[in-house]
Amino acid sequence: MTDLTPNSSFSLTLRLEIPNRIGMLASVTQAIATTGGNLGQIDLIEQTRAVSIRDLTVDAASTEHAEAIVQAVKALPDIKLLNVYDRTFNLHRGGKISITSRISLKSVSDLAMAYTPGVGRICTAIAQNPEEVYKLTIKQNTVAIVTDGSAVLGLGNLGPGAALPVMEGKAMLFKEFAGIDAFPICLATQDTDEIVSTVKNIAPVFGGVNLEDIAAPRCFEIEERLRRELDIPVFHDDQHGTAIVTLAALFNSLKLVHKSMEQIRIVINGAGAAGIAIARLLQKAGAEKIWMCDSKGILSTSRTDLTEEKQEFAVKAQGTLAGAMQAADVFIGVSGPGVLTPEMVRSMAKDPIVFAMANPIPEIQPELVSNEVAVMATGRSDYPNQINNVLAFPGVFRGALDCRAETITTSMYLEAASAIASLVKPSDLDREHIIPSVFDERVATTVAAAVQRAARQDGIARS
Amino acid sequence: MTDLTPNSSFSLTLRLEIPNRIGMLASVTQAIATTGGNLGQIDLIEQTRAVSIRDLTVDAASTEHAEAIVQAVKALPDIKLLNVYDRTFNLHRGGKISITSRISLKSVSDLAMAYTPGVGRICTAIAQNPEEVYKLTIKQNTVAIVTDGSAVLGLGNLGPGAALPVMEGKAMLFKEFAGIDAFPICLATQDTDEIVSTVKNIAPVFGGVNLEDIAAPRCFEIEERLRRELDIPVFHDDQHGTAIVTLAALFNSLKLVHKSMEQIRIVINGAGAAGIAIARLLQKAGAEKIWMCDSKGILSTSRTDLTEEKQEFAVKAQGTLAGAMQAADVFIGVSGPGVLTPEMVRSMAKDPIVFAMANPIPEIQPELVSNEVAVMATGRSDYPNQINNVLAFPGVFRGALDCRAETITTSMYLEAASAIASLVKPSDLDREHIIPSVFDERVATTVAAAVQRAARQDGIARS
Repeated sequence: MTDLTPNSSFSLTLRLEIPNRIGMLASVTQAIATTGGNLGQIDLIEQTRAVSIRDLTVDAASTEHAEAIVQAVKALPDIKLLNVYDRTFNLHRGGKISITSRISLKSVSDLAMAYTPGVGRICTAIAQNPEEVYKLTIKQNTVAIVTDGSAVLGLGNLGPGAALPVMEGKAMLFKEFAGIDAFPICLATQDTDEIVSTVKNIAPVFGGVNLEDIAAPRCFEIEERLRRELDIPVFHDDQHGTAIVTLAALFNSLKLVHKSMEQIRIVINGAGAAGIAIARLLQKAGAEKIWMCDSKGILSTSRTDLTEEKQEFAVKAQGTLAGAMQAADVFIGVSGPGVLTPEMVRSMAKDPIVFAMANPIPEIQPELVSNEVAVMATGRSDYPNQINNVLAFPGVFRGALDCRAETITTSMYLEAASAIASLVKPSDLDREHIIPSVFDERVATTVAAAVQRAARQDGIARS
Repeated sequence: MTDLTPNSSFSLTLRLEIPNRIGMLASVTQAIATTGGNLGQIDLIEQTRAVSIRDLTVDAASTEHAEAIVQAVKALPDIKLLNVYDRTFNLHRGGKISITSRISLKSVSDLAMAYTPGVGRICTAIAQNPEEVYKLTIKQNTVAIVTDGSAVLGLGNLGPGAALPVMEGKAMLFKEFAGIDAFPICLATQDTDEIVSTVKNIAPVFGGVNLEDIAAPRCFEIEERLRRELDIPVFHDDQHGTAIVTLAALFNSLKLVHKSMEQIRIVINGAGAAGIAIARLLQKAGAEKIWMCDSKGILSTSRTDLTEEKQEFAVKAQGTLAGAMQAADVFIGVSGPGVLTPEMVRSMAKDPIVFAMANPIPEIQPELVSNEVAVMATGRSDYPNQINNVLAFPGVFRGALDCRAETITTSMYLEAASAIASLVKPSDLDREHIIPSVFDERVATTVAAAVQRAARQDGIARS
């Protein structure tokens, strides 16, 4: 982990009592700098003649690094360390989302309208015309974020409780970026049939289902069955969110290197949910030469260990990732840290495009090959060209909910990818700016509009 | 429905254009009064020299009554009816609750702490110590409101979509009265096994489960099994919420008439979820003579049509409700409109106590016997002594969540009932004030404290 730069996920606040003498605060900042901590905000909490109490916010690169910074400050003579807050843990305490009432309930008359007996009239109206549920309840704007906790981030099968902080975070993103009310459903089962029947049973409240962090290959069947059996959009973000944003980034990268989708050879490393979905979408977008690799090498027709989804992409070629990379135009990594070497990059065709999207540690550290690639993108916010699902899923659901799409189609994905790519103006497009920022406020509305358009063309919009 | 008084559940706003001439507004208010509408707020929207546009809020007694009021206003010369809003429908449009983020997400650093990569540290902490889910997620304060839509209010089996407005309303009450985040789960199944397995599957996110509007006798088995198989509190509000508040009202009523629980004979009419739960709780509180009736009369040991739960209360006596009422001390109705006649009330023992709780139309209109009963209570807010579950469930869950009770026990119910009763000071206690108002802010905290105390005594508090 030592090659990581300090970042906010290991962010501390140190509360210090510092004597009011020249050079004392400087000694603290010096100690933090020496240990490699990244000093942020400094707040004065209290000041007497003798001492100042200050809160110093410091980003570290890892838990060990954070501990080293604390020790360095503790070792300083005359400086008293009053408290250390782990900002990330503090932020999560008590959870990150909340249910609020949209109506005030201050009088008997409020109660009589919002609850009994008035609410009975609303129930009757929906019972008589089931479509009214979209007008008179939260369904129109509410999405279930469903996980079984089997593939939590890159951390593996942590189970439903440990997955909940991610789902809460996702719910925040839905609200922040698209105004959607999303609620986490973390399932105490990892059985495909049970997951499908549970989601079907709870579906009446929801206008859409976002599947999240469910391991492959189970995720494919779950999504497929839910799509068939529910009349609301079902979207596995790890697959399609990643695929949409990857395609958007690739559209713009190809403009820079003047190559066409049909012409290039793409290596996708990682044949899980994201890898398979990327390959499928790139094919729909016109890619003709895709070689996928898993941990055993190229998905080759000669292999006998391939799942159904992997067989879909089996090619005649065989061998290792290194072999696949020779003369490849594009590398797309959805695998693990450090699996791509500078040598492999150097063996690629002219103007190589490398998307090293493993999180938090990419397939290759960008600085190792910065002079050798035409375009480098990662999943990280501290490098240029962050390929982040948050560019896709809020707008996809916003669009699908707004037109009451009965399902989600591939043309929606393609339209969403084009819409994201289009937000980088030709004059702004360069190797460090192939994709808009997640904080670009145009993204969700532009994606939503594109998704609605596709839904209407596909004849699946219901309003 | 014509015997109902106007109330806010049939509340209209009429937008009128009224010439600025003497007597014109008076003609409108006169017309509304003549048709029996209850005029509330009048807002001036716009005024020119010639006309005023005003919004008049009018409560009606029923949909037909509302229509009659509209027609009466329409018939007035020179008055133009611009629009009619149904306030109850307007209030429900788009749903009544919303998910909000507790943390601002404005920068890359916010994202890195609340979402990836920072959130990964929180997930890992929970995976290593599952108890941490109570500190680091929403679980500690989140309740599922679960229904299958099979017994929605008094309206019957309307299904999950039509039940949703009630569950949203319940979620509002949880928030307003106890600061609890509750989310509606409306199930697309009415099969007991499927309901149990679905609720178990979604349980990881929740600190408690509130069952709601599930038909008897299925509700008993569902609650029983979920209690056994989950380690979080499960509470069927239609049973226990009603029972707690009824018992509280009975405690105070008995003080007024100087009778003791052991001595009185109680008739409970209605042997559904609420009736059975009331009978069970009254027994635990010391009641020895309970006769229950269903639509076929007294639950008698001679009957062969009784469910298991009804058999629990079968008595030697047999006959009709009218027979049961002779010389009874207390009537508790959780049945239907108008089933109790003045003659039956007159046949009761001295100082009769009548709780006519059917909603919205009670078992007997209070005014018919107001001089003949010692105490009258209903479920309605427009009569004195409203027996309303909202006095119980918010505090019960607040208390159970705060001490992380692993289940809910009968002593919690008894303590909660005593706590509610205790909020009516002896000096304030009279026949029209046996129970606190739902807007009495002390209720939830007092109930919560009592429930926590009981949980600690029962040894089921985990924090």
